[in-house]
Amino acid sequence: MQNFDYYNPTRIVFGQDSIAQLDTLVPADAKVLVLYGGGSAERNGTLAEVEAALGGRTVRRFGGIEPNPEFDTLMEAVALIRAEKLDFLLAVGGGSVIDGTKFVAAAVDYPNDPWQILETHGAQVTRAVPMGCVLTLPATGSEMNNFSVVSRRARQAKLAFSSAHVFPRFSVLDPVKTYSLPPRQIANGAVDAFVHVMEQYLTYPANAPVQDRYAEGLLQTLIEVGPQALATPQDYDVRANLMWAATQALNGLIGAGVPQDWATHMIGHEITALYGLDHAQTLAIVLPALMNERRAAKRDKLLQYAARVWNIHSGGADERIDMAIAQTRAFFESLGVKTRFADYGVGAEAVDKVAAQLEAHGMTALGEDQAVDIATVRRILQAAL
Amino acid sequence: MQNFDYYNPTRIVFGQDSIAQLDTLVPADAKVLVLYGGGSAERNGTLAEVEAALGGRTVRRFGGIEPNPEFDTLMEAVALIRAEKLDFLLAVGGGSVIDGTKFVAAAVDYPNDPWQILETHGAQVTRAVPMGCVLTLPATGSEMNNFSVVSRRARQAKLAFSSAHVFPRFSVLDPVKTYSLPPRQIANGAVDAFVHVMEQYLTYPANAPVQDRYAEGLLQTLIEVGPQALATPQDYDVRANLMWAATQALNGLIGAGVPQDWATHMIGHEITALYGLDHAQTLAIVLPALMNERRAAKRDKLLQYAARVWNIHSGGADERIDMAIAQTRAFFESLGVKTRFADYGVGAEAVDKVAAQLEAHGMTALGEDQAVDIATVRRILQAAL
Repeated sequence: MQNFDYYNPTRIVFGQDSIAQLDTLVPADAKVLVLYGGGSAERNGTLAEVEAALGGRTVRRFGGIEPNPEFDTLMEAVALIRAEKLDFLLAVGGGSVIDGTKFVAAAVDYPNDPWQILETHGAQVTRAVPMGCVLTLPATGSEMNNFSVVSRRARQAKLAFSSAHVFPRFSVLDPVKTYSLPPRQIANGAVDAFVHVMEQYLTYPANAPVQDRYAEGLLQTLIEVGPQALATPQDYDVRANLMWAATQALNGLIGAGVPQDWATHMIGHEITALYGLDHAQTLAIVLPALMNERRAAKRDKLLQYAARVWNIHSGGADERIDMAIAQTRAFFESLGVKTRFADYGVGAEAVDKVAAQLEAHGMTALGEDQAVDIATVRRILQAAL
Repeated sequence: MQNFDYYNPTRIVFGQDSIAQLDTLVPADAKVLVLYGGGSAERNGTLAEVEAALGGRTVRRFGGIEPNPEFDTLMEAVALIRAEKLDFLLAVGGGSVIDGTKFVAAAVDYPNDPWQILETHGAQVTRAVPMGCVLTLPATGSEMNNFSVVSRRARQAKLAFSSAHVFPRFSVLDPVKTYSLPPRQIANGAVDAFVHVMEQYLTYPANAPVQDRYAEGLLQTLIEVGPQALATPQDYDVRANLMWAATQALNGLIGAGVPQDWATHMIGHEITALYGLDHAQTLAIVLPALMNERRAAKRDKLLQYAARVWNIHSGGADERIDMAIAQTRAFFESLGVKTRFADYGVGAEAVDKVAAQLEAHGMTALGEDQAVDIATVRRILQAAL
């Protein structure tokens, strides 16, 4: 096991009707800004439920935070908070709203141009407005970590930051709030969570059996509940287990003390930036091709994954690895998330374009061993056409 | 899944040479009391290493905290802290030292008789002196939870309390510090951690696959590394995995959203109080007998445990349950922890005595379904003779 430093102070309030607990979770004298995305939180009554729970407090609304939240939009929220001297942020939504709220929280009192927060990846953040979350979309894990990704389209930039100051104080997770989500968002969320686990698991053995088994347990759970969540959208336990698995997939726990490989996410981000594909769609394209390309470096873990997650015990080693990759691809496809560029109308030019963007962004040594250079990326992309 | 509220702000600094990080973990202007147990922390150099890392700070020592920490001893530490106006507590040791330090932390500013903290199980604790831990004995999980058990021999009492105010701010876990532990303490620690997991797992199915698989992963890991830790005491990874599994076994995570059954611990506490057996010895006596007595109520989970933890797939249901119980007993015995009263020279009179103590303490409806009444406890004890 590698040395590690694990810290996660976010309180999780989980279960049906838990939004009512906002009344005790948010300080009684707080002046609250509720941040949300499109109109669904308004339409489906979640915003009203949140505001009822906050009864008696000053509450302002800020809607319109986009998927891949936009710097300019978020700075409008910063201006509102400064103008009205609001002192508590409540994100109501999925990963984009929560990521955006983290940035807003850090930006309000930032002494310089807040864009610097992203350029320096959070290194100079020394405080943030306290924030909480009401999660409505299980996917990114942002509700229980201190990461945030923000886009600035005018500069064709999508940058990440992290800071211990932007851990949500609490996150309320009510599985019932996911019932009304479109199937595409549920499928994307299951794929995103699955790939989060894989990127902390599928590297090389580090003699960390607790972390390995936690990761395998999350993968097995996502394989079970992902299709069920699409087939029976109002099955409470299915949605609860999807939600808890997605939160656990990226809260620092399974990655503590083990090598990690975020190449799939890094390549995927460029595909989204270039072609506008959903984040999870890019992951579903990249991961199977990357698993095959990196089968030598990841051989031991691929065999462990085949055996423990997919129950593949017969055949030669390469055959078992082939089967595990095929099962992974089939899992994504079974959720309706396609796994090849061609499925999204993207042609062979993607190889050059994505490789060039990665090179431009200095992403030339990805992977757990920094061995995924641009030539390797090109082979992965070629295989994913 | 049941609704739950999960919160654990303890930072874990894990790995070889991590004690040096105390310099940044403890506030620079802190006036520190280092609390420890017997002389082993002095003899093996850990105390000196801790004090070197704290260089420049005011540091006082308080040694002599007993296994099953004693109220009167702890109140001496409280007096010292008050007299010298110390403001940070650092527990160096295992669960007893950490439990004792939590009580001290809560008692220093408690407005009434601190015994009341235990009598009211922590309900009226509103603040505590900040504390950190240097863990030297993997077993209880106290380094990453807010529970504490304190004894007061003059009143034949062993009481527990919990409070969000006594979460350690941080715990430093260096597996190397466990190399010098006596085999009996390693074996006891592995059994204690194993039973902690079982008491949050072996109840009835609650459709919580993440929690189930996390628990099974911890059990499998303890089954692997427990004997290895005894056979090769200086194998770093083995000790690291034992340590991390024991911490994970009781930090609130695997028990979130699922039923729990602490009957084994409750019965075991009375045996320790009456006969002075090690805590883990009492658990090893009680658990196999309890599993058999409660095989109807726990049937589904016993079969899941048999299959997933022990790989028992053939035979009738009752036969598989018998095999799983036998494997559990054999695991404890393989660590040198005996599983029957007779092994410790305790005779049949234990049935009456332990049952009477449980009754006197109001423990007459134990278990995940409150069905473990005194008659059931007597059958369990009888079967464990």
